[in-house]
Amino acid sequence: MSLAERIQELLHAKIPITRAMGVRVAEYDGRRLVLSAPLAENVNHLGTAFGGSLNTLAVLSGYGLLWLELQDEECHIVIRDSSISYERPVRGGLRASCALPEAEKLAEFKQTFHQRGKARIALASTIEDQGVTAVRFRGTFVALR
Amino acid sequence: MSLAERIQELLHAKIPITRAMGVRVAEYDGRRLVLSAPLAENVNHLGTAFGGSLNTLAVLSGYGLLWLELQDEECHIVIRDSSISYERPVRGGLRASCALPEAEKLAEFKQTFHQRGKARIALASTIEDQGVTAVRFRGTFVALR
Repeated sequence: MSLAERIQELLHAKIPITRAMGVRVAEYDGRRLVLSAPLAENVNHLGTAFGGSLNTLAVLSGYGLLWLELQDEECHIVIRDSSISYERPVRGGLRASCALPEAEKLAEFKQTFHQRGKARIALASTIEDQGVTAVRFRGTFVALR
Repeated sequence: MSLAERIQELLHAKIPITRAMGVRVAEYDGRRLVLSAPLAENVNHLGTAFGGSLNTLAVLSGYGLLWLELQDEECHIVIRDSSISYERPVRGGLRASCALPEAEKLAEFKQTFHQRGKARIALASTIEDQGVTAVRFRGTFVALR
C-alpha cells in the first residue's frame, strides 16, 4: 500500500466524518499533500462548497502531511488553533493543498520534537476554484510523543 | 413547527454533511443558539472530538443564529473568515453555543443590511467540555440580499 493510500485509510478508519465527506488523497509527492472531496457531500444552501467542509479538508491536509512526515515517530498530532479566510465560493469539487514549510523551519520543528517530545509548527493550506485561490487556511499543529 | 425545528430541518436539507454529523438544535431562546452533535460521528484518532467537526459546529451555530434573527428577510448568509482556538480536548458530545452580540452592534448590522442589502457581523461561539471552555471560535458572517 502506498503512503497516500495509508493516510487515506487511516483518516477513514480513525476520523469517520472523513468517510461521510468522501475525503480522498489526490496527490502526494513527499513535500505536498492534496486532499479532495466531492461537492455533493459537502454542498451548502447556495450550491457551493460548505465553509465547514472547506475548513475540515484544510485541517486534514495539514494533519495528513505532518503524519506522513513523522510516520516513523511514535506521536500524536493535534491542531491547536487556526484561521481561515473564504475569499471566493468554491463551485466544483473541493481540493485542499498543503506543502511543508521551508527546510529550516521543518528541521527546527523535528529537533524540538526529538528533544522535548513536543513541538508545534504552522502550516498553510489553500483551496482553489478554477485555478484561483478561493480559501486561505493557516493552522498550528502540535506533535506529542 | 418551532423555530428550532425549522433551522434543524433547514440545515439537514440544505447542508447534507450536517446529517452525517448528527447536528441537532439543543437550545434556542431568541438570543442564544446551542447546537449539539454526538461524539461517535465526530470522533478523531484520539477518541476525542475531531477539530474539523468542532469548527463546523461553531460555524453552524453562528450561521443558524443569524438565520433565525433574519428569518423574515430575503437574504443569504455566508461566512467570510474565522479563527478558532482548541484549548482542551472535548471528550463527550459536542455542544456549540453562540449568542447575539450587544444590542447596539446588532442594530447597526440590521440597519446596514436594510440600507445596502449587505452587512457583516462578528459572532463568537464557544464549546465546553465538562463545564470548562474548550474551544473558542470567532467568525465574520455576511448577510446578502
